[in-house]
Amino acid sequence: MSNNIRVAILGATGAVGTEIINLLIERDFPLSQLKLLASSRSAGKTIPFKNQSLTIEEVTENSFDDVDIVLASAGGSTSKKWAKTIIEAGAVMIDNSSAFRMDENVPLVVPEINPQDAQKHQGIIANPNCTTILMGVAIYPLHLIKPIKRIIVSTYQSASGAGARAMEEVKVQAQGILNGETPQPEILPYPLAFNLFPHNSPILDNHYCEEEMKMVNETRKIFGDDGIRISATCVRVPVLRAHSEAINLEFDQPFEVNEAKEAISQAEGVTVVDDWANNYFPMPIDATGKDDVLVGRIRQDISSDNNLEVWLCGDQIRKGAALNAVQIAELLVEKNWLK
Amino acid sequence: MSNNIRVAILGATGAVGTEIINLLIERDFPLSQLKLLASSRSAGKTIPFKNQSLTIEEVTENSFDDVDIVLASAGGSTSKKWAKTIIEAGAVMIDNSSAFRMDENVPLVVPEINPQDAQKHQGIIANPNCTTILMGVAIYPLHLIKPIKRIIVSTYQSASGAGARAMEEVKVQAQGILNGETPQPEILPYPLAFNLFPHNSPILDNHYCEEEMKMVNETRKIFGDDGIRISATCVRVPVLRAHSEAINLEFDQPFEVNEAKEAISQAEGVTVVDDWANNYFPMPIDATGKDDVLVGRIRQDISSDNNLEVWLCGDQIRKGAALNAVQIAELLVEKNWLK
Repeated sequence: MSNNIRVAILGATGAVGTEIINLLIERDFPLSQLKLLASSRSAGKTIPFKNQSLTIEEVTENSFDDVDIVLASAGGSTSKKWAKTIIEAGAVMIDNSSAFRMDENVPLVVPEINPQDAQKHQGIIANPNCTTILMGVAIYPLHLIKPIKRIIVSTYQSASGAGARAMEEVKVQAQGILNGETPQPEILPYPLAFNLFPHNSPILDNHYCEEEMKMVNETRKIFGDDGIRISATCVRVPVLRAHSEAINLEFDQPFEVNEAKEAISQAEGVTVVDDWANNYFPMPIDATGKDDVLVGRIRQDISSDNNLEVWLCGDQIRKGAALNAVQIAELLVEKNWLK
Repeated sequence: MSNNIRVAILGATGAVGTEIINLLIERDFPLSQLKLLASSRSAGKTIPFKNQSLTIEEVTENSFDDVDIVLASAGGSTSKKWAKTIIEAGAVMIDNSSAFRMDENVPLVVPEINPQDAQKHQGIIANPNCTTILMGVAIYPLHLIKPIKRIIVSTYQSASGAGARAMEEVKVQAQGILNGETPQPEILPYPLAFNLFPHNSPILDNHYCEEEMKMVNETRKIFGDDGIRISATCVRVPVLRAHSEAINLEFDQPFEVNEAKEAISQAEGVTVVDDWANNYFPMPIDATGKDDVLVGRIRQDISSDNNLEVWLCGDQIRKGAALNAVQIAELLVEKNWLK
């Protein structure tokens, strides 16, 4: 890789932005310049980076003039607001929000699945939703062998998906309940400590919430297969930063379990944790801070010859968001696909 | 109802035993005598009951001589140990353990579903597993209209299913984590506070755990339909005492959502909480302490014309265990099925 990439992080103070900074250091990203951008509220704060201290700048019309890659994680409205400016400045935006994911001119990329799509970008590459990324890396190796026809998935989503303040809220709520109080939720719509609730994103006309339809539509786009039928039930659980998913996969013929396990274990971005003897399978505490998605309980569905079931946990902030975005940036640099 | 039923609670100090005592008072069960039985460890302790104070007795060979109904919730080995003694004493054991559930001579009863089976008892009636009861009352009304062909269910099971000490452990763990410690689990196999894990019951040869196969086998027995194909993924979550379940139901033809909702709403033991406008659905905190199973998110599965999806929460200790057992006792008294 060349060592002269100028990167800006838009939304540098959030849970994902913070993790992106960590990952750029950890993965020794070939930076020549790192610019931390945020709203005026955060401007002027400093953030340690290697041996330096970087000052957060307020994003303006000229922020992107000397930038190659913008890693955006400040929400959909911010991404929409600055997209044109970023593209006109000649930079590429890797966008964590859902704003452009289903835009047919915007590639939606998981590097382990469809890296080739990144090449087609016109200035924006979208980072998929966390639940979609985690499921995708786990099951795509199977789809390559025998096409998946239908997916029924139930999620167990951590507080981090609702942001750093939601994570803090769960801890404060838990302490309050342990003290015998009845804490009132502020960030999340309902109490989450010692509780759970169906995902609170807006409900669409088909009675699936937006989060659930992201899993449906984004998976189809990333896999390049509009024929996969998918039903998702998304649930928020009192876990801090790793999501879990129970996935039922239908093929049009039986898929031998050992072959499936072998395929998943050889795939990039996945670690198989499938210890039947000790009843030890992926757990959020084991997935937290890990790059790989942990996949286990790979088994024959006893209710249907053509179905398999898998269970996974993955760090929502890392592979579910920040890591996938940084991997896309690395891909653009390696392949020389920035322009 | 007559007012002369002599009841013994075997395992009176556990989470379920305690709730049975509360329910006998609340529901004004026609008691002429209540005997609280437990191991020698608890014998001599007193428990308040109405205006009295009842002393816990150690269970012995003669404990059941003057008893009509034994409500047993002290675990499978205790139930097995005393079953013959109870039957020979002329009492009926309503057993919360899994010891006799699949015995063909033992009815497995959910009063809202198969009350008639209770009449066939030969001294033992089994109370189903919590997850089975909660799912059963929610979906049986649909099965009566169009037979259910296949069920795919993912559970979100509270700590209470592992007993009162597991509930306490989750709270202690949560406090430890909030204090920055790394608490070691004692009752549960893995940390549960701010974590979750696939159910830790023994794994069977088919790679389903015992808890999952209870949902499969018990549902078939209660519904009286061995043809229903069922796959369950059971997961323990850091919630105290209400279970949740995401259920996908396959019929052999489409089932109109409004008809399904109407059928469930008219069923006994169920309250529909299906507020799409406000994104308000069943949550453990709302189900806790309630007799009814809360059912919502009743919707067409977008991945299959012949499938519906439902979401439920139910109090694991009440309808999932103690209440169902007390309802069976009430049924025996009302119908005069004690002998």
